[in-house]
Amino acid sequence: MHPLDQATSLYVSNSGALRGSASDAYWNFGGPFGGVTAATLMRAVLEREDRLGDPCSITVNFTAAIAKGAFDVVVRPIRTGKSVQHWYVELRQDDVVAANATIVCAKRRPTWAHRPATPPSVPPPQAVEPMPNDSRNAFVSQFEFRFAEGPIERNPAFDGKLRSARSCLWLDNAVPRDWDFIGLTTFCDLFFGRIFHVQGTVFPAATVSMTAYFHVDAAGLAALGCGPLLGVADAHVFTTGFFDQTAQLWSSDSRLLATTTQIVTYR
Amino acid sequence: MHPLDQATSLYVSNSGALRGSASDAYWNFGGPFGGVTAATLMRAVLEREDRLGDPCSITVNFTAAIAKGAFDVVVRPIRTGKSVQHWYVELRQDDVVAANATIVCAKRRPTWAHRPATPPSVPPPQAVEPMPNDSRNAFVSQFEFRFAEGPIERNPAFDGKLRSARSCLWLDNAVPRDWDFIGLTTFCDLFFGRIFHVQGTVFPAATVSMTAYFHVDAAGLAALGCGPLLGVADAHVFTTGFFDQTAQLWSSDSRLLATTTQIVTYR
Repeated sequence: MHPLDQATSLYVSNSGALRGSASDAYWNFGGPFGGVTAATLMRAVLEREDRLGDPCSITVNFTAAIAKGAFDVVVRPIRTGKSVQHWYVELRQDDVVAANATIVCAKRRPTWAHRPATPPSVPPPQAVEPMPNDSRNAFVSQFEFRFAEGPIERNPAFDGKLRSARSCLWLDNAVPRDWDFIGLTTFCDLFFGRIFHVQGTVFPAATVSMTAYFHVDAAGLAALGCGPLLGVADAHVFTTGFFDQTAQLWSSDSRLLATTTQIVTYR
Repeated sequence: MHPLDQATSLYVSNSGALRGSASDAYWNFGGPFGGVTAATLMRAVLEREDRLGDPCSITVNFTAAIAKGAFDVVVRPIRTGKSVQHWYVELRQDDVVAANATIVCAKRRPTWAHRPATPPSVPPPQAVEPMPNDSRNAFVSQFEFRFAEGPIERNPAFDGKLRSARSCLWLDNAVPRDWDFIGLTTFCDLFFGRIFHVQGTVFPAATVSMTAYFHVDAAGLAALGCGPLLGVADAHVFTTGFFDQTAQLWSSDSRLLATTTQIVTYR
């Protein structure tokens, strides 16, 4: 089993509850990597037999620190329309809601289409060196980061020089994995905090809430097979303990797969 | 009472339920304007005595059509941390969840700040003609729209010519109103569907989910008084029945107040 499938797997306990476990393999500062938490909540909906269509959007709120060990996932269908379906999901640990999500699934249909956004022009992934995998956070070594623009610097402290908040990079799983909504949801959170890029140093900061919109269906994702996606990330503002970040994920053949935004707290 | 306060007001019914009513004054295609629905759910949290700090983010899902008449609002505190608090809110009509929201409130604190995003350079509001207020949707006449760039065209049908998805415009209440989180939440949804701008024609389309991040606190908003905000909106992709849109709201003194994104369904 791929480490990402292991990290996001859910089983039904004897009591009937849906249960998972915080992943050591994807550990971050003081908790599992948020992208894996988001993908775990997504899996709880993906595995529902009464699901309608494919994921269209997800908002995940990281409401408390997730400790090592088991957690329960509670899934509630909110509303099923003709072509759009809404879900509410909670991740609970010892009666604390440690994450929750609203997820929208939808049946897509052929319509007029228009793609005004285009990916930046960057060298192909094989022409860009991967970032060394020597982070103290385990999750980093589960992925490959090839920065074409706006690399991360890991200076001991902020030197007062303001760097760009924007990065363009090729992102992939360290162990190849075919694309699906588990992978795509995970990768929506795979952009380092823009504050690290601006300050040139890395320190604990926590995503408060993340939203992703998907612009592809399951068949379109499966057709990609495995291989790197092009990520573009940026930020608007850092103020009074919170900054935003926005990102896009593009297939290597220039198709926009997901757009995502998050709000992050820092000290 | 200002029409927006009337439209978003909530009272406690004899049964103890929090109750509001769908606003005729802000009626849109087949339901109340989504910005007012979002602001109503925001009000349910703003009026809580156990609220911590000011709104930091909101995701609203428009889960079913809202009919004329009364609705109930159910508010659930999910998790209160030291400085961040999470809420879940539902709007119900006849046992149907017609909208739900996750809302994050937070105590902001002085920190290092950085504002890499800047507003576009546009003429001042008084130099831009307001759009004629002759829409068949009542909510439009509650506001003033002054397009500096990317105006809306209302041709009888799409002529095949692709226009820009981007607009810059001054937005205000038709009846002046001091800024607060009710107003700011409402205005996050005040950008016409980008598909109308691209096609140059207006037709029913429905927001499925909207997320907004706030980059100002209550005191900062109150200090603005009333007056127009500068809005900038754009879109990445229109495909298989769904398009995204992104927007920023800036104060007239160039302060970024909110960033927002939504996913919209079309035929």
